[in-house]
Amino acid sequence: MHPLDPLTPDEISRTALIVRPNFGRQDNLNFRVITLQEPPKALLAPFLDNERCGKPKGPPPTRSARVEVVLSDHNHNHALFELLVDLDKDRVAAKQHVPGKHSYIDSGYMKQVEAACLADSEVQRQIATLDLPEGATVVVEPWAYATDGMNDMSQRVSMCWFYLRLLENPNANYYAYPLDLCAEVSEQLKVTKVYRLPTTAVERIHNKERPFDRRREHPAAASEYHPDLRPNPRSTTKPYHVLQPDGPSFHVNGQRIEWEKWQLRVGFNYREGLTLHDISYDGRSLFYRIALSEMFVPYGDPRAPYPRKAAFDLGNDGAGINANNLQLGCDCLGTIKYFDAWHNDASGNPVKMPNVVCCHEQDDGILWKHTNFRTRDAVVARSRILVLQTIITVSNYEYIFAFHFGQDASIHYEVRATGILSTVPTSLDSDQKLPYGTNVAPGVLAPYHQHLFNLRIDPALDGHKNTLAIEESHPLPIDDPSIHNPFGVGYTTTTTPVLHESGHDLDHTTNRTFKILNESSINPTTKTPVGFKLLPSYSQTLLSHPSSYHAKRSEFAQHAVWVTKYQDDDHFPAGKYTMQSLGGEGIASGIAKRAAVNSAAEKNDPSLPPGHQQQGGGIRDSDIVVWHTFGSTHNPRIEDWPVMPSEKMTVGLKPVNFFSGNPGVDVRASRKGEGDERSVLYTGEEDKGVTGVDRDGCCNGAKF
Amino acid sequence: MHPLDPLTPDEISRTALIVRPNFGRQDNLNFRVITLQEPPKALLAPFLDNERCGKPKGPPPTRSARVEVVLSDHNHNHALFELLVDLDKDRVAAKQHVPGKHSYIDSGYMKQVEAACLADSEVQRQIATLDLPEGATVVVEPWAYATDGMNDMSQRVSMCWFYLRLLENPNANYYAYPLDLCAEVSEQLKVTKVYRLPTTAVERIHNKERPFDRRREHPAAASEYHPDLRPNPRSTTKPYHVLQPDGPSFHVNGQRIEWEKWQLRVGFNYREGLTLHDISYDGRSLFYRIALSEMFVPYGDPRAPYPRKAAFDLGNDGAGINANNLQLGCDCLGTIKYFDAWHNDASGNPVKMPNVVCCHEQDDGILWKHTNFRTRDAVVARSRILVLQTIITVSNYEYIFAFHFGQDASIHYEVRATGILSTVPTSLDSDQKLPYGTNVAPGVLAPYHQHLFNLRIDPALDGHKNTLAIEESHPLPIDDPSIHNPFGVGYTTTTTPVLHESGHDLDHTTNRTFKILNESSINPTTKTPVGFKLLPSYSQTLLSHPSSYHAKRSEFAQHAVWVTKYQDDDHFPAGKYTMQSLGGEGIASGIAKRAAVNSAAEKNDPSLPPGHQQQGGGIRDSDIVVWHTFGSTHNPRIEDWPVMPSEKMTVGLKPVNFFSGNPGVDVRASRKGEGDERSVLYTGEEDKGVTGVDRDGCCNGAKF
Repeated sequence: MHPLDPLTPDEISRTALIVRPNFGRQDNLNFRVITLQEPPKALLAPFLDNERCGKPKGPPPTRSARVEVVLSDHNHNHALFELLVDLDKDRVAAKQHVPGKHSYIDSGYMKQVEAACLADSEVQRQIATLDLPEGATVVVEPWAYATDGMNDMSQRVSMCWFYLRLLENPNANYYAYPLDLCAEVSEQLKVTKVYRLPTTAVERIHNKERPFDRRREHPAAASEYHPDLRPNPRSTTKPYHVLQPDGPSFHVNGQRIEWEKWQLRVGFNYREGLTLHDISYDGRSLFYRIALSEMFVPYGDPRAPYPRKAAFDLGNDGAGINANNLQLGCDCLGTIKYFDAWHNDASGNPVKMPNVVCCHEQDDGILWKHTNFRTRDAVVARSRILVLQTIITVSNYEYIFAFHFGQDASIHYEVRATGILSTVPTSLDSDQKLPYGTNVAPGVLAPYHQHLFNLRIDPALDGHKNTLAIEESHPLPIDDPSIHNPFGVGYTTTTTPVLHESGHDLDHTTNRTFKILNESSINPTTKTPVGFKLLPSYSQTLLSHPSSYHAKRSEFAQHAVWVTKYQDDDHFPAGKYTMQSLGGEGIASGIAKRAAVNSAAEKNDPSLPPGHQQQGGGIRDSDIVVWHTFGSTHNPRIEDWPVMPSEKMTVGLKPVNFFSGNPGVDVRASRKGEGDERSVLYTGEEDKGVTGVDRDGCCNGAKF
Repeated sequence: MHPLDPLTPDEISRTALIVRPNFGRQDNLNFRVITLQEPPKALLAPFLDNERCGKPKGPPPTRSARVEVVLSDHNHNHALFELLVDLDKDRVAAKQHVPGKHSYIDSGYMKQVEAACLADSEVQRQIATLDLPEGATVVVEPWAYATDGMNDMSQRVSMCWFYLRLLENPNANYYAYPLDLCAEVSEQLKVTKVYRLPTTAVERIHNKERPFDRRREHPAAASEYHPDLRPNPRSTTKPYHVLQPDGPSFHVNGQRIEWEKWQLRVGFNYREGLTLHDISYDGRSLFYRIALSEMFVPYGDPRAPYPRKAAFDLGNDGAGINANNLQLGCDCLGTIKYFDAWHNDASGNPVKMPNVVCCHEQDDGILWKHTNFRTRDAVVARSRILVLQTIITVSNYEYIFAFHFGQDASIHYEVRATGILSTVPTSLDSDQKLPYGTNVAPGVLAPYHQHLFNLRIDPALDGHKNTLAIEESHPLPIDDPSIHNPFGVGYTTTTTPVLHESGHDLDHTTNRTFKILNESSINPTTKTPVGFKLLPSYSQTLLSHPSSYHAKRSEFAQHAVWVTKYQDDDHFPAGKYTMQSLGGEGIASGIAKRAAVNSAAEKNDPSLPPGHQQQGGGIRDSDIVVWHTFGSTHNPRIEDWPVMPSEKMTVGLKPVNFFSGNPGVDVRASRKGEGDERSVLYTGEEDKGVTGVDRDGCCNGAKF
C-alpha cells in the first residue's frame, strides 16, 4: 500500500466501523465522504523523494481517512461532522462539528426533493393550468441554490426547474421544453414557493396562470441528440482503428504510471476527481501534485430567480462523484488502461466506481522535424502523448478533463465542455432576442454564462523551494543614449520574482509569462534558474460585480494566476464548503488573512530592524502553489444545440531551461521510409471497397 | 480544367514560350515565377456559385498565368518584369517593368553568393586566423538582407553568416558552432565587407583577429539531432498503427475535396503554398479563399549587423517553393492523399514538386457527449477531422501548417514551429547571459525573435456581402436604476459592426470576439445574422519601434485583426515585393491611401448633402477580407535545442448562429459497446509480448 493510494474498499468499511461508535446509537448517520486524507507534505515529501531516488524510504506516514458525516433528526435538522480516522491505530484522531456548513450535493436527497416537488398539490395545480400536450411528461430538475441574499442559507434550499419531455422515449431532450414554472423546496422537503418565470426582458416572476404555448412544439430533429430519436445518422464516416501490436508504451503498477521517462501517481477522490502526484521526468522531480481545484458556472441573466443559477461543480457536485464510467461510451481509443475508484454509500459501505479514469496513448502529429537543405536529408520524429482522461456529468453539462504528457517533457491540460445547454423559457411574441442569451429553439433561451476552472499546480522543480516569476518582453527604448538600440528593433525581457502571495492577470501584449523557477538550481549552459512556464488559457475573468455573492463566493475567479504558500489541505480556492456559501473563504481571503497575521507578527518582532519593510510572509524561494483560473464566457451559439460540440480549452506547462536540451531529441526519428507508423496511399475512387493500397509509404515499416 | 486548378506542366511550358519573344534574343531570361493568375472575383465568384448550386456555370473565366522574369546583363544589372499571359489566346496580355523591386530569393543565386564568399581571399584569410580544429568545415549561410537603412537597397546585398561543421558527417548540426565572422556580398557577387561579430553586450563589429575558442567544442549529444549522430534512440515508444479498413472518408477529384459535408478546392502557389478555395459546408458557401498571407521573423538583438536578420518567409522565401516532399518523412499518418505541385526552373521549364500537401483524417477525441443522468444512457460521438498539411523549410526553421476541418463545421489552422534555432556566437568569458538571447551551448546564443504570421480569410458567408463585427461581454452596471441588475450578476454583449477598413487588437478581458456576419441572412431561430467567429491566437504584436524598418516593412504585425475591402490580387499584407523593401506598401498604408482617396472623392461629390459624414469607403455589408496576425515572441529555451519540439499555435473559425443547430449532431454516436473504433484493454505487465487483450471494450465493434 502506497501512502497516496486511494482508500481500499476494506479501508472504507473499516473507517465507517471506527466512526460509528463516536455517535449515538439512534443517530441517523449519513456518510457523505470517506476518503484518503493525504499525508502532510512534511512527512510525505521526504518519503517520495527517497522513493524516487531509490533510497531507503523509511516507514510510510500514518494512513488516514477523512470523513464527512451528516446527522439528521426527525425534524430534518442536520449537523455536519468532519472526522479524521487513523487507520494504522484504528481510531478517530479528530472529530469536529462544522456548524452552518453543508456537505456537497446529496443525490439521494435531490431525488427526494424532486419527488416532493412533483407531489405537491400547488405544483400539480400549476401544472394543470399549463394545459400540456397529451402524453408529455413533466420533468423536475432540482438545483442547489446559489446564494443571492434572499434566503437564510443555514438550511438547504433547492430550486426546482421544470421541463417537458414531449416524446415517450425517456432519453428525449427535455431541455428543449423549459416550462415557466419554478418551485422552491426546503430542507424539510416542503414546497415553500411556486411561481412563474419571466419570459421577456421586462417581466418579473409572477403568478399569472398561462398555458404552455403550443407554438413551441417543434420537430425532434431540431432538438434531439440521442441516436434512438435521430434515425438517419451520417453514414459517410469510415472506420478508423488504432492498433498497438506490441502493446502500449506505458507500464502501470497499481496507481503508478511509467511512460517515456515520466513517472507519476494517479489519485482520485470524490471532489477533485483525478489527481496527479509526484510527477517526475527522467528521474527529476517536477510537480508534487496537480489537480483541478474548482469550477464555477455562474449564469448572467439578471432576472430573479436566475442569479440562483451558479454551480460550483467541484465543491457542490464533485468531479469524482460525477465521473463517468468510461467503458460505457466510446471515450478513449487504442490500448486502454482503466482506473477504478471507490466511494461510499450513505451507510459507509464501499461503492465501486468502475473505469473513472482512462489512460491511453495518442499520436500527436510531428514532435520535431528538420530538413538539412544542403543534404536534403529530412529527419522527422512523431509525437506520442500519454492521455489521462476523466469525464464528468453535471446535470446537463459534460466536462472532459485530460492531462497530456509529452515526450518533450510538456504537460497539457485539456478541458472540453460538451453536453446540453441549460435552458429557460422565453416568449415567442417578439422578433427581438433577449439580451441575456441565445434562442436555440422556439421559446427556448440558452442564457449567457461563464465556465471558470481553476487548476492547482503544486510544483517541486528540483525540490520544494520554488519561485513564481513574471517575465515580460519589452522593446528597448530608442531615445536613451545609455541603451544600445540604433535600429529600433531591440527587445529584452524583464523577470520579476513574486515576493508575496497574490493574484495576477494575463497580458499577451507584453508576452507576460509566468515561470516557476528553482533559483537554487542553475542551468549550467543557460546560466539561469531551471524552470517551467505556464501556457495559460486566455479568458475573461468573472463578470459578476465584486459586491455580488457570485464574486464573494468564487474569489479565485478574480485573477488568472495566483500564488500562495503551501499549506496542507489548502486545496479549495472557493473555500472548503461551497454549498450555499456566503463567501469570504476563498483564496483571496486566505491571502489577506495571512498577510494581516504576518504583518502583525513582524510589527511585534524585536529582531527586525526599525523601518524593516513588511514582508507579509515572503514566498520567494519557498514551497509555493500556483493556481491558474481559466475558462470561457459562454454566450451560446445555436450550434451548441441540442448537444454541444466540444469546446476546447488548453493549459500547458513546459520546461524552460530546466533540461540540457530538447527532452524528446532521442525519440526515434524516421528518415526516408523508415519508421514505426504505417501509412497507406490514397489512390482515388477507382479502388472500390479498399481505397487504401499497400505501398512503401512515408513510414511504412512493414507491408500489410 | 477548373479555373482554380494550378497551371499544368504544359501550361507552364506554353507560358514561357509565349513570354520569350517579348524580350530580345540575347536577353538572359530568368523565369522566377510562372503561376496561375487567379481569375477576378467578379468573374470567378458567379462561376463557383453556379457550380456549387448545380446551375449552368457558363464559360469559365480566361485562363491566365502570372509571370516574373528577371533580365540580367553582363554587368549583373537586373531588371524585374511582370507579365500576364492569356492562355486562352496564347498571348501576353500585360507586361510591366517593375523598377527598384526584387523578386523572391533565388536559391541558385544564393549558391553563387555562398561560393563567391568562400572563394574570396579576405574571407579565406580571416578563416585562417580562426585556427579552426582539424577536419572541421566552414559553412556559409547567406541570408537576404533585412533593410536597416545602412545600404542602397536597389541591388541585392547578401549577408553571409559563418558556421563550423565540426564532424565529418554532412548532416552534423553546424548551427552549434556559429563563427564570429561575417561577410557582405554584392549583387555582382563581390565580397564588399568582412568583419568580426560582437560576442558580448558591449562589443561592436570589429576587425580584431582572434582564433576560434576551443572551449566551445562540446559533445555531439548536446547539439546533434540527426539519428546518424545520436546512436541510442529511445526504444520505449511502441508502434502505433492507424488502419482505415474501408478507406478514408474523403473523396478527391482533381483539386476538389469532399469530406463530411465539406467541399473545397486545394490550390498551391510558389509564395503562399497551400491555398483553400470555395469552401462550403452542407452546400452553403462559407469562405471564398483562405491562405497564409505572410510571415515575418524579426530578431531582437540590437547589435549591428543583427537587425539585418528579419525574414519574410513568404514574400522573400516562398512557402510554396520551400515546401517539403512529405513522402520523405513520417509527416502524415493513416490513409494519405498527396497533392503534387508544379513550379518552373529559370528557363521556364516545369518542375514537379511532389507531395507538397498531404490530406488525411485524424481521430480528434470526443466530438460531443451526454449522459442522461436519469436513464444513465451515455451517448458519445467521436470527432474525426480532415487535415490538409504542408511543411516548409526556411534555412534553419521548419513550419508545419495544417488546416483541420471538423464535423462541427469548424476550421482550425494549426501552425507548428520546429527545426533549428538561428544562432550567433557569444563569449564564454562571462557568467552572465546576454540580455538578447539564451545560451543553448557553449558560446552559442539563440537570440530572441518573433514569428508573426498572417492568415488571410476571405469570407463568403451565404454570399459575398459580409460584415466584421466586434462583440464584447460586459457586466451590467449595478447603480443605474434604468437597468435591471438587482444581484449584480447580470451581463450582456455589445456588438459593433466595423464600418471602415481598420486594424484591431485582441482583448480577452472583455471576451472581445471578432465575428464575420451576413447581416442579410438572419437565423430564423436566433433572430440574429448568421456568422462565423474567429478564435484568435493570443500573442504579442511586433516589438520593433514604429519608426524602425522592421515595423515599416511588416505593417500587418501592428494589429491582430484587420479588415479590408476585397480587391483582386490584394494578397500581401507586407507588400507584394518584400525583398529589401523599404516599407509603406503593406496593409496599413493601403488602408490609409484608400481612405484618403475616398475622403477626397466624397468631399467633391455634389450629390452628397452638406455636412455628410465622411465614410471613407464603408465596408459594412460588403465584400470584405479579414486578416489575422498571430505568432509567438520566441525567447528560446534550451529545450528548443538542438532541434525544437513543435511549438503549436492555433487559430479557429467556428459557426455562430449560422446553422440550425450542431452541424455534427448527426455523426454516428455510440452507446454501450457499439461503435466503429476498436479499442483494446490493457491488462498489465503479465501479458508479455502482447499486452493488449481482446475484449468487448468501449467501442469494440468486432473481435480481433
